[in-house]
Amino acid sequence: MIPRRVVPSAEVDTLTGLPAGTIARRFRIDQRYWADGDETSSAMAAHAAHAAIDEAGWGSDSIDAIIGACGVMEQPIPGTALLVQQRLGLGHSGIPAFDINATCLSFLLALDRALIGFAMGEWRRVIVFSADIASAALDFAEPEASAIFGDGAVAFALSAEGPHQRLAHRFSSYGHAADVCQLEAGGTRLRPHDDWDGFLARSRFRMDGHGVFRATAAPFPAFLDKLLTAADTDAANLSVIIPHQASAAALEHLKRAVPGGQERTVDIFARYGNQIATSMPHALHHARRDGRLQSGTTGMLIGTSAGVSLGGAIIRW
Amino acid sequence: MIPRRVVPSAEVDTLTGLPAGTIARRFRIDQRYWADGDETSSAMAAHAAHAAIDEAGWGSDSIDAIIGACGVMEQPIPGTALLVQQRLGLGHSGIPAFDINATCLSFLLALDRALIGFAMGEWRRVIVFSADIASAALDFAEPEASAIFGDGAVAFALSAEGPHQRLAHRFSSYGHAADVCQLEAGGTRLRPHDDWDGFLARSRFRMDGHGVFRATAAPFPAFLDKLLTAADTDAANLSVIIPHQASAAALEHLKRAVPGGQERTVDIFARYGNQIATSMPHALHHARRDGRLQSGTTGMLIGTSAGVSLGGAIIRW
Repeated sequence: MIPRRVVPSAEVDTLTGLPAGTIARRFRIDQRYWADGDETSSAMAAHAAHAAIDEAGWGSDSIDAIIGACGVMEQPIPGTALLVQQRLGLGHSGIPAFDINATCLSFLLALDRALIGFAMGEWRRVIVFSADIASAALDFAEPEASAIFGDGAVAFALSAEGPHQRLAHRFSSYGHAADVCQLEAGGTRLRPHDDWDGFLARSRFRMDGHGVFRATAAPFPAFLDKLLTAADTDAANLSVIIPHQASAAALEHLKRAVPGGQERTVDIFARYGNQIATSMPHALHHARRDGRLQSGTTGMLIGTSAGVSLGGAIIRW
Repeated sequence: MIPRRVVPSAEVDTLTGLPAGTIARRFRIDQRYWADGDETSSAMAAHAAHAAIDEAGWGSDSIDAIIGACGVMEQPIPGTALLVQQRLGLGHSGIPAFDINATCLSFLLALDRALIGFAMGEWRRVIVFSADIASAALDFAEPEASAIFGDGAVAFALSAEGPHQRLAHRFSSYGHAADVCQLEAGGTRLRPHDDWDGFLARSRFRMDGHGVFRATAAPFPAFLDKLLTAADTDAANLSVIIPHQASAAALEHLKRAVPGGQERTVDIFARYGNQIATSMPHALHHARRDGRLQSGTTGMLIGTSAGVSLGGAIIRW
């Protein structure tokens, strides 16, 4: 679910005080969407989940779990999955609702949790959603950490009947780079009542793009190799590559790092930007809509997240 | 790991402006611990995890995953598990680090994820930690929503060698009561730059204790029955009951609702209060330390969380 308001890069030129055309050229992004006040994470996610349930033709009482996979939650308590359950009219259902957080890779872990639940016979029908409102905490004095981010929500109605076979999953975290992507204000460490100025100064997203690249590029080749080995496949067998849409540069790096990556990578960055945890399921949604996830297709989800982490999955549809 | 500073209930009498002795008498709590500024969630959790790893005698390179299970995170980006990984000196290790959130029941779901990982052969050694700093967001004008809360962190070094057999797990969510426990400020919905007064007014925890009780007490008997049935056991076979320490009243209700509950329930509320997600693992830690989790013991973890949800697990040690 895309917010109503499209924001062309020309508008971000103005916000950042850069000459016209700079943002589009420097970051290779045409536009992104930003949520208005009524378009909260749970409102967008419930809209997306409702559409997914309708399309699947499920009765709402047949859902076994609702897993939230957002980068940043709508509010600290309760979790976003509960707010979405309520908005879906399922607030009296008892359907388990909880959240998994791995910043931009939250969806990858939530999807994995759903597939494990299917494999164990624990669940048959699961809603997994991502929703993020990056625009809530952007600092336009820092174009690198603001110009590329967009908002949105995506939900999938996943069924144990498949076709979703988990061939491999890999997640590797490198906390030494915890400070290259940060949003400090909003948790228990910074307290707005005690130090308002300090709180406000740390209430916008900070990113050292070069630091992210350094921390993730070095372990990437070995990570990819181990992921493919775990799936007993090689890159040539992947029909489609569904990455987190971190940046144009990151996508370009991925396309070059994976054999055949140029043709097979789903790249929606120029239209939507980096939608935090929503990017990967959004790319997956596009791949599905475009008929790239035919039954028997082997695809790879892959990306990086703040922390930093590398994550990937190889799935047969 | 308990913060340095113990806060007797007499001190909370003063903070709330109530006559001396009121808090201890009304809420049946003697004291709680509150964290100072250097005692952040990740600092406390890393301290607890370090002790757990030492006690287990593990080499730090043998850990397969670090799962964070906090009620409220230390900061929105990156997740607390990454911060803990870094503090453990494992920032270059690649060990997967991510967070699961279900407010006060986060530990129950993280423990379940670890046990599933063991059952699937995915992992052999996992750190699960909870850390919460409730004192960061208390409103002493609302004694019910402030007087009982304490801070702390607990970590477990869990091994596939057991003895941790997952006999049953159940989690039921009722989002219709999402507003009975809320902390609104700190996510993407309320934006401190746009509306500082609104942000500040919603930056303390709100709880309608009666509403929580109403929403959770009604489904509880059927929930417990289904949990016991799924484990193919009955309450008489439970050696120990390890609840979330929601309140003295909630613990009393539990002790009466479960046959034999008075003798078998771990109750540490009067000394530590409600430590959000840390309460359940803290009670588990006490049960273990007191020799109540001998091999072959069947125990039940059970509790409620904001949202609201009911959660429980029956585990054989």
